[in-house]
Amino acid sequence: MNSPLNPQRTIAELKELRALTADENGAQRVAFTPLWVKARAWLKQKLEALPVEIHTDAAGNLWTTLRGESEKHLLMGGHMDSVPNGGWLDGCLNVLAGVEILRRINTQFQGKPPITVRLVDWADEEGARFGKSLFGSSACSGNLDMNEARGLKDKDGITLPDALKNIGVDFERVKDSGQELRNAAAYLELHIEQGPVLLDLGLPLGAVLGTFGVERHAITFHGQAAHSGSTPMNRRKDAFLAAAKLSPEIYRIAERSQGGVCTIGSCLTRPGIVTSVVEECRITLDQRHLDAAALAGMLQEAKDASEKFAQEGNVKVSWERLWQIAPRPFNDELISLCDEAIRETCGKGHRLPSGPLHDAAEVARAGVPTVMMFVQSLHGISHNKIEDTKEDDLALCVTAFDKLAEKAMGWICK
Amino acid sequence: MNSPLNPQRTIAELKELRALTADENGAQRVAFTPLWVKARAWLKQKLEALPVEIHTDAAGNLWTTLRGESEKHLLMGGHMDSVPNGGWLDGCLNVLAGVEILRRINTQFQGKPPITVRLVDWADEEGARFGKSLFGSSACSGNLDMNEARGLKDKDGITLPDALKNIGVDFERVKDSGQELRNAAAYLELHIEQGPVLLDLGLPLGAVLGTFGVERHAITFHGQAAHSGSTPMNRRKDAFLAAAKLSPEIYRIAERSQGGVCTIGSCLTRPGIVTSVVEECRITLDQRHLDAAALAGMLQEAKDASEKFAQEGNVKVSWERLWQIAPRPFNDELISLCDEAIRETCGKGHRLPSGPLHDAAEVARAGVPTVMMFVQSLHGISHNKIEDTKEDDLALCVTAFDKLAEKAMGWICK
Repeated sequence: MNSPLNPQRTIAELKELRALTADENGAQRVAFTPLWVKARAWLKQKLEALPVEIHTDAAGNLWTTLRGESEKHLLMGGHMDSVPNGGWLDGCLNVLAGVEILRRINTQFQGKPPITVRLVDWADEEGARFGKSLFGSSACSGNLDMNEARGLKDKDGITLPDALKNIGVDFERVKDSGQELRNAAAYLELHIEQGPVLLDLGLPLGAVLGTFGVERHAITFHGQAAHSGSTPMNRRKDAFLAAAKLSPEIYRIAERSQGGVCTIGSCLTRPGIVTSVVEECRITLDQRHLDAAALAGMLQEAKDASEKFAQEGNVKVSWERLWQIAPRPFNDELISLCDEAIRETCGKGHRLPSGPLHDAAEVARAGVPTVMMFVQSLHGISHNKIEDTKEDDLALCVTAFDKLAEKAMGWICK
Repeated sequence: MNSPLNPQRTIAELKELRALTADENGAQRVAFTPLWVKARAWLKQKLEALPVEIHTDAAGNLWTTLRGESEKHLLMGGHMDSVPNGGWLDGCLNVLAGVEILRRINTQFQGKPPITVRLVDWADEEGARFGKSLFGSSACSGNLDMNEARGLKDKDGITLPDALKNIGVDFERVKDSGQELRNAAAYLELHIEQGPVLLDLGLPLGAVLGTFGVERHAITFHGQAAHSGSTPMNRRKDAFLAAAKLSPEIYRIAERSQGGVCTIGSCLTRPGIVTSVVEECRITLDQRHLDAAALAGMLQEAKDASEKFAQEGNVKVSWERLWQIAPRPFNDELISLCDEAIRETCGKGHRLPSGPLHDAAEVARAGVPTVMMFVQSLHGISHNKIEDTKEDDLALCVTAFDKLAEKAMGWICK
């Protein structure tokens, strides 16, 4: 292949965007705010150099279409919006790699590729302002909970519908965006890994197996307050003891699940004073797995363990579900193509699940064959101004993602 | 002995006091408040029927003296003050049993016992208003921290010195009350047990070995916040995990200490959100033992365990002392006399330490031979309106405490 792809240009454009939309605390491209509007206008300028059609759909997602011979669509997607004080790569890396790939395809096929290729910039992936992520993609997939979304307010009391009106989007019509997926034959998304897996393995790139399903619960142990000086140890109904025993147990549960993760993220104690045995202890448990049965198994094991520890400590336990979402496994054939593209680019591949959610999960949920590619994150973290990736790896990921696009195009044409 | 002791009168007087100073939420005799002043005035009326000298000392403690042949003093002590919404027996049981014993001694010796017998109503044992317990007795023992006490304020911003001025006490002179102990040869205190030990044993009465020493610390584990979805279990620095492991461990430490108790009373997690591994976890640890070396051993074991769990979990740990007090073992001979008095009264005795502090600890600290007697608490609790003791047990405790007074008098005269 005599590719006109220029990954260095993508890196330069990422830096250009950073200069435009970040301050000393990180990226500030929060959805529906002036800096986000500015970032999109800047993006459009880049795209208008190509023979493409650009429009905003009913949910505020920005679509760029390079028409091809076939009406079948290859989609690439990302998001220009960031959390406040965010990283410079999260979201926009995909979009700008996509721009470069559109350029390559346009050049290679002289404006008329065999299939139609589209780049989408999803609206409000982060949910930083209204507390609900994947807005644009879930509207498009048809899964947005309209009643819930209608009532969302930002910290100034502005509702999501009002914020959307400001950028010309009619909230009640956002699901009309679903028609954009009508001819979608495959969806590809490149993203910086938001964890340390590739970093630990010393690998630049990985093929993503899907997004984790999540079970999120509050667990409350109910014991009895008692004087810390006058109550013998064997007479206590210590709610903290039962909750505490669950902490090492969730590590064993996660290990047995082969690939899942469990987190106790918060612990509240009542009365919570130094001179009393804990009467009530409330912890949160977040469990994730790529396999629905394994996730259900982890949840059951945690419930069983909590009952056992409650019984041992003569306390009671109650569970309350806070949130859940099913795993979204990606398309097996596209995962293989992604892995191939990575191996051809840097020699060694790795397959891993995604803990965090991504717009790709919504597209997969809508039935479009989907895969994601991860590039290594230097500190294993994101949503932080220190989020970073080596420039060599950035160049590699643009190259590998382009190879994946090429392979996906061939796969669609088969 | 042809005793004119009438324990039923004590029970009737306890009920009279309850009718005067309790509401539907329990006893309301908070020190230095109008209801406490009212309770003391009522007490004085009872005492004035005896040929006694009554005065308030420099710290606001109320002393009633029945002069005897010898200038050696037998002291009995309690406190009329209660916590807000307190129990009907905590504190005043001792005082009213003491009144009845003064009556018995006065009758038996026709106003001239072989030694002087004194009853003290300590001021502000509970510390409910200013947050510092044992005010009157620690002033008298000389251990009150004047600088700390001078700055104490109630929730309305009134200082302890100003509250004392209202009842005619000059804060700067409170330690002059120490002279009251000049001729003290023994100090006896009867109290409702503030735990369930006698209840569990089915025994009405127990001889108290002393008050526990206390080591009170805040322990903070410092880990790293990390995304609950994207951070593999073996990469976590989970501050909650290390803290949680300490909870079952303190039960093992207490068991090995033979007689100590350990309590984790509160747990705070930061950032404390469902989607993040806990970065910082702060718990409080309260440890108590009657033996100073055993207490020091328990503290060292907890420190060692915290270091071990921190190391296992790749987190750091830091300790901060919140408070400590040394154990106050009571007088061996008086403990034996107390045990004898109990066995003679109800057939079976039991010796136990006191978890909570009492005025007796301050008197013992001042070098006066001291012992306490506990009567069973029906629910094993105090500082609550449901605090209660069977009437039969109340009668038994007055009888046994009187026997102890008689024996102590003999012991002093030896």
